[in-house]
Amino acid sequence: MFIDRLIENIKSKKSPVVVGLDPRIEMTPQFIKDIAFKKRGENIEGVCEALYLFNKGIIDAVYDIVPAVKIQVAFYEAYGIEGFKAFFKTAEYAKSLGLMVIADVKRGDIQEVAKMYSKAYLQNQLFDAITVNPYMGEDTIMPYVEDAIKYDKGIFALVKTSNKGSKDIQDIKTTKGEYVYQSVARMINRISNSAIGKYGYSSIGAVVGATYPEEAKVLRKEMPNCFFLVPGYGAQGGTVEDIMDCFDENGFGAIINSSRSVIYAYQTPYWKDVYSEYEYAQAARAEVILMTGMINNGLVKRKYIAC
Amino acid sequence: MFIDRLIENIKSKKSPVVVGLDPRIEMTPQFIKDIAFKKRGENIEGVCEALYLFNKGIIDAVYDIVPAVKIQVAFYEAYGIEGFKAFFKTAEYAKSLGLMVIADVKRGDIQEVAKMYSKAYLQNQLFDAITVNPYMGEDTIMPYVEDAIKYDKGIFALVKTSNKGSKDIQDIKTTKGEYVYQSVARMINRISNSAIGKYGYSSIGAVVGATYPEEAKVLRKEMPNCFFLVPGYGAQGGTVEDIMDCFDENGFGAIINSSRSVIYAYQTPYWKDVYSEYEYAQAARAEVILMTGMINNGLVKRKYIAC
Repeated sequence: MFIDRLIENIKSKKSPVVVGLDPRIEMTPQFIKDIAFKKRGENIEGVCEALYLFNKGIIDAVYDIVPAVKIQVAFYEAYGIEGFKAFFKTAEYAKSLGLMVIADVKRGDIQEVAKMYSKAYLQNQLFDAITVNPYMGEDTIMPYVEDAIKYDKGIFALVKTSNKGSKDIQDIKTTKGEYVYQSVARMINRISNSAIGKYGYSSIGAVVGATYPEEAKVLRKEMPNCFFLVPGYGAQGGTVEDIMDCFDENGFGAIINSSRSVIYAYQTPYWKDVYSEYEYAQAARAEVILMTGMINNGLVKRKYIAC
Repeated sequence: MFIDRLIENIKSKKSPVVVGLDPRIEMTPQFIKDIAFKKRGENIEGVCEALYLFNKGIIDAVYDIVPAVKIQVAFYEAYGIEGFKAFFKTAEYAKSLGLMVIADVKRGDIQEVAKMYSKAYLQNQLFDAITVNPYMGEDTIMPYVEDAIKYDKGIFALVKTSNKGSKDIQDIKTTKGEYVYQSVARMINRISNSAIGKYGYSSIGAVVGATYPEEAKVLRKEMPNCFFLVPGYGAQGGTVEDIMDCFDENGFGAIINSSRSVIYAYQTPYWKDVYSEYEYAQAARAEVILMTGMINNGLVKRKYIAC
């Protein structure tokens, strides 16, 4: 099962950290752009080649210390056909080094359409899991759940997202005396019953932002089946302390994504005097090691079991 | 402005009907598959060629009687790179015949990501408008709004969707004595103030399902700025009577999408004895003419002004 493989990967890598491959051409080291543009021209092909080469460097540097990467499709979709080629090539390369690949697509549509999105990602051997948007309701989530069970994949449904505006809809107070995100949480936790693995977690998980620790604490209790995919750590403002309540006492229950803080670590105040842009991948590795250590240390301090 | 162009197209075509190009290979006429497979092989390339040829036939048959087509990206995305090629080719062909093109992508993500989705679709000259998902909040909608204004495009945000499960989240009762979809409606209507055209409607519109006439009636009042993109007519169960309250007294305020009932009209009980599969495109044209007539007749009966 997806969730069992994920937990076993977290154990063997001793890390709940997921690296988000969200490359931006304007932040890509010049030497990579030079190589890519020389090879494919200073055009969309060259840009997408640069994004792929950048990702490849990151993957080479972190594949042995993280269980998974998350690839945000929009950073590729923005470049059309060539972008998608870079997206698929990135997933393929990550898989070839044993990483699990989460396609961060946040799709959501009526059943007949959801089936096609599921065909695109869950029926594609390159991806282990996808993110989905629950606004349209349970019947729109079920095609993904069915394919997750059939093809041994996972899904993470948006519950409480990391951005400021997540309050607008997700934090609307309901007549049941709770927030909308709690109703969503209940729905997802119930659906997740159909895919529980040997460690007690389901292959149907939830996206819970690192930037809302109080909400995460509530959700950890209300969604006992669901592993959390936690965005918002690092560049978006989430700290180690903020994410602690996403974990259970055994140190499981969450994978923590960091994109910008890892892949552009060499540009941060903390690392910029240590690593040059030529060493962007080593900087990413150093940041992952630091981030993993801080999270595991945080778990130990709580007397939780660390990875 | 997008919305002014849309209204003028509705007037000149005398129709608020939008044809949804959601082609399924298993429902594609055999003669089209034969041509496509012969040209590109009985593989993904051949399948995507067949989808494109099918669309081309439909577009040729309806371009002079509808203002716009809606292309549901999932039916192409399911086939990866080749699918996207067919998606873009379809949009290009529709545009070449003067149709407005709505990319039904229902994307939604944090600002930095939304900007990339917006680059993919609103900054792409092939598309006039996109659908977006509001679950993540106002800040995640704003990048599309900014680009809609800057590039003269439109957006339709999900408010009340046509599927049964839309009740799960959208119909949660809030402490303000309303439903979640009404809170979403208020948010979208407020945002839409920044892009109002000369006919009083905004380029920021809403998706309101044909299958919920009572809710549509309420929303028509609560979202005076917003044009509705109405899915769910026909195959999904929405009738002419159901959609009447989506319109204003001048016969504007809504475009009515039909996908399956139009593009597979030749397979329906109503048309199957009239048109063979070789005449699928003529059947689609006949169904559009019928649907337009019925809607305009419905408007007249209400003493609304018909297109």
